[in-house]
Amino acid sequence: MAAREMILSAAVCLCSIAAVRLMDLYWDSPSPGPHWMERESGPALRASCSGHGRVFNDGSDLACECSDCYTGVNCSELQHGCMVDADAGDPTFLEPFWMEHGADAGVFMPSWYRMGYSVKKKGSSPAHKELPLVYVIKELEDSIRELHELVGNAVVKDKYLVLGTGSMQLVAAALNALSDSFPEKPGAVVTRAPYYMIYKLQVDVLSSSKFQWGGDAVAAFEKKAFDPSSVVELLAAPNNPDTSILEPVYKGTNAKIIHDKAYYWPHYTAIAGALDEDVMLFSLSKTTGHAGSRIGWALVRDIEVYKKMFMYIAVSTIGVSRESQLRAHRLIKSVLDGYQNGGSHKARMFDFGYHTLQSRWQTLAEIFKASTRFSIQKVDSQHCSFFKKEVSPSPAYAWIRCEQEEDCHSIFAAAGINGRPGRAFGASNRYIRLCMIKRDDEFELLAGKLQALVDTELTNE
Amino acid sequence: MAAREMILSAAVCLCSIAAVRLMDLYWDSPSPGPHWMERESGPALRASCSGHGRVFNDGSDLACECSDCYTGVNCSELQHGCMVDADAGDPTFLEPFWMEHGADAGVFMPSWYRMGYSVKKKGSSPAHKELPLVYVIKELEDSIRELHELVGNAVVKDKYLVLGTGSMQLVAAALNALSDSFPEKPGAVVTRAPYYMIYKLQVDVLSSSKFQWGGDAVAAFEKKAFDPSSVVELLAAPNNPDTSILEPVYKGTNAKIIHDKAYYWPHYTAIAGALDEDVMLFSLSKTTGHAGSRIGWALVRDIEVYKKMFMYIAVSTIGVSRESQLRAHRLIKSVLDGYQNGGSHKARMFDFGYHTLQSRWQTLAEIFKASTRFSIQKVDSQHCSFFKKEVSPSPAYAWIRCEQEEDCHSIFAAAGINGRPGRAFGASNRYIRLCMIKRDDEFELLAGKLQALVDTELTNE
Repeated sequence: MAAREMILSAAVCLCSIAAVRLMDLYWDSPSPGPHWMERESGPALRASCSGHGRVFNDGSDLACECSDCYTGVNCSELQHGCMVDADAGDPTFLEPFWMEHGADAGVFMPSWYRMGYSVKKKGSSPAHKELPLVYVIKELEDSIRELHELVGNAVVKDKYLVLGTGSMQLVAAALNALSDSFPEKPGAVVTRAPYYMIYKLQVDVLSSSKFQWGGDAVAAFEKKAFDPSSVVELLAAPNNPDTSILEPVYKGTNAKIIHDKAYYWPHYTAIAGALDEDVMLFSLSKTTGHAGSRIGWALVRDIEVYKKMFMYIAVSTIGVSRESQLRAHRLIKSVLDGYQNGGSHKARMFDFGYHTLQSRWQTLAEIFKASTRFSIQKVDSQHCSFFKKEVSPSPAYAWIRCEQEEDCHSIFAAAGINGRPGRAFGASNRYIRLCMIKRDDEFELLAGKLQALVDTELTNE
Repeated sequence: MAAREMILSAAVCLCSIAAVRLMDLYWDSPSPGPHWMERESGPALRASCSGHGRVFNDGSDLACECSDCYTGVNCSELQHGCMVDADAGDPTFLEPFWMEHGADAGVFMPSWYRMGYSVKKKGSSPAHKELPLVYVIKELEDSIRELHELVGNAVVKDKYLVLGTGSMQLVAAALNALSDSFPEKPGAVVTRAPYYMIYKLQVDVLSSSKFQWGGDAVAAFEKKAFDPSSVVELLAAPNNPDTSILEPVYKGTNAKIIHDKAYYWPHYTAIAGALDEDVMLFSLSKTTGHAGSRIGWALVRDIEVYKKMFMYIAVSTIGVSRESQLRAHRLIKSVLDGYQNGGSHKARMFDFGYHTLQSRWQTLAEIFKASTRFSIQKVDSQHCSFFKKEVSPSPAYAWIRCEQEEDCHSIFAAAGINGRPGRAFGASNRYIRLCMIKRDDEFELLAGKLQALVDTELTNE
């Protein structure tokens, strides 16, 4: 930790010197220079916020926004008795990577950048005839395809790419497309429990006439609750929350499966090979850690499904933010550069991410090893085709079972940890999900509170 | 035109000199300077594309993207026999304003800018309890409210603000919220014909169990086709396509109206006063001309409607792109500065926009004055509370009626003009919509072809 912070400080310092020299030039000069230079990067880069916060250039008050449980103008005060937030899944564990190695992925947009609805340079995926909107920046589509080829996690050849405002919009688009052929409407959307709660929330809120929430896929299948030809199965693998990698419940050539592959990247799991499914979803949030950008993509085999999904995105949001697309392109390009141009090991995002999460999992496993009151999910070491070696586990979430008590969430809350309760995932409240992908300082607080919780158990034995 | 282009060229030239000086500094220096400076603004600003194109900094090939009908590496060749595209509604008439006056609205985002799902600084609109996502950058909400107060087109006090990925997402969110109380489901979504075609497309694609497309509001009301308590009326005023400003068809305290106020800004219409409706929608696309950013907002009176709309956006797209929000904030801030800080008349966006569109309308009215074959919609001069004077018309679209022929679209197509046919708006094909808000060179081509079309008519008489 200390070493990394020193490197960061040094980089910040050098950048600041450069920025100051730059501004001297501007202040001496009568040219109409871009005054955003000072505003955009100067103070933001200089402010360290005690290593427990960030300054974002949103407005006039360039104040530190502190990590959870830190407070004060410089985020230097740790709030005593503060509840650690391990509920939300902000992927900020990659923030230090970008602060160290992301200079080339910063992006400047002039005020007149891409004002139109359509872009004029077309990518490889065809536009819709009825609504001839071209909303995808070609370079982004190209870099996404290249990234999959580098990582080897999905077959992109002969696949259409649908860009969405985050992958949840693509879930809606895919459900809408696949349910068109249901013989009975509304059909059912099922998924193995425990499942990502927003799947259900979204289906409920959308109130489609074509599909309704059908609950746990295994229960539905065993009870023969629905005609299988009127079912779409959502399958997240690795799964959120329990990080398991399972097969679809509904099988056969007519089964309609949406493969949510958000976590099928080398920092979270061993890559077993390039998947070649009909509908696969990915998101920038989990790939580069940029959840705020709301960029997701679907790789789709069938042109009719592609057209329907495209139409859904086109009429729901008339495409996807050009600003986010440009930034996503630069970020992915920067990741590619780290691996392709003989870059140093340190500038390789998946390596950085994997090592961070693997070390966190080791910490967690160590803490819970001695406990009989709590157990964490079992994740095996496996061969990863990307890293070309056996890799030890590095899951995004801990899925913890309370072996004695029934209300796991309350136990953790009493210990100062706010996790997400099992019932939010269609599971029992004996479970709780803890997010492992936030900032280092936030994970350290979490680990400290978990250690104290287990220590209490061992002392009381 | 010539004068404006000279000013533009001069500005580009000065900026280039500044950029070159800046880069000299970097090339001399061993500091880890931001190399994006050259990539981001140097070539893009320097390339003039013959005044008929733009260079965007998306990728490695910094090529000109030409205006419609222009081609060649520098967009210098006018394609003979090219069809003028007056179909799509790209609001690029404001592009020259931003190129001249938008230096302060350019935005730089470091690679680590706002990676999380939530922002930590809360705005005035409350977060949802069930899904405690805070996705709106406070500064954007503040600047939107300030803009409405400057223009005086909407009452923002005691209103909640829902931010959406463009205003069409807010249409879906509002329909979803308001239809909850329908006694009969599915209820009906109606709107006066002619109407914006994507209203209908969206309702059809969403396939909600709560509402269906009910067609023309006047016809539905007269035929008593639906129970009025199970109806939502969409009312765009000024209307797209015919720019009319009409009252709702469904009236009374229980009427559920979504007021689409996308065009209720001083460049398109006289501001009659600050509206104070229950649900009002606006979009950045038409306000500052940034359609590609996909930013819209709703001003909502009732907290229950607000909560439901918030929830819809939260589960559909988990909020709105942070990049677009930051850019929208800077753009709106820049518009505000133009009016508030004693800025010159030239740096005032609504003035620029109004003068551009008013002059275009005058050109069009002049062309069609002599025609008996075609008529354009009547728009009156009116007092504008923002400009504090009577303003002559400056509508965004021409809604043209073919007085003799039945297939208006074919007549215009034969004259080299691709307009949007009446049937796309639920109207007769005797009508065609022509977009008046694209680039100057594109409008000039359109005006030339229209003049030729009317000249033929007069010659043949």
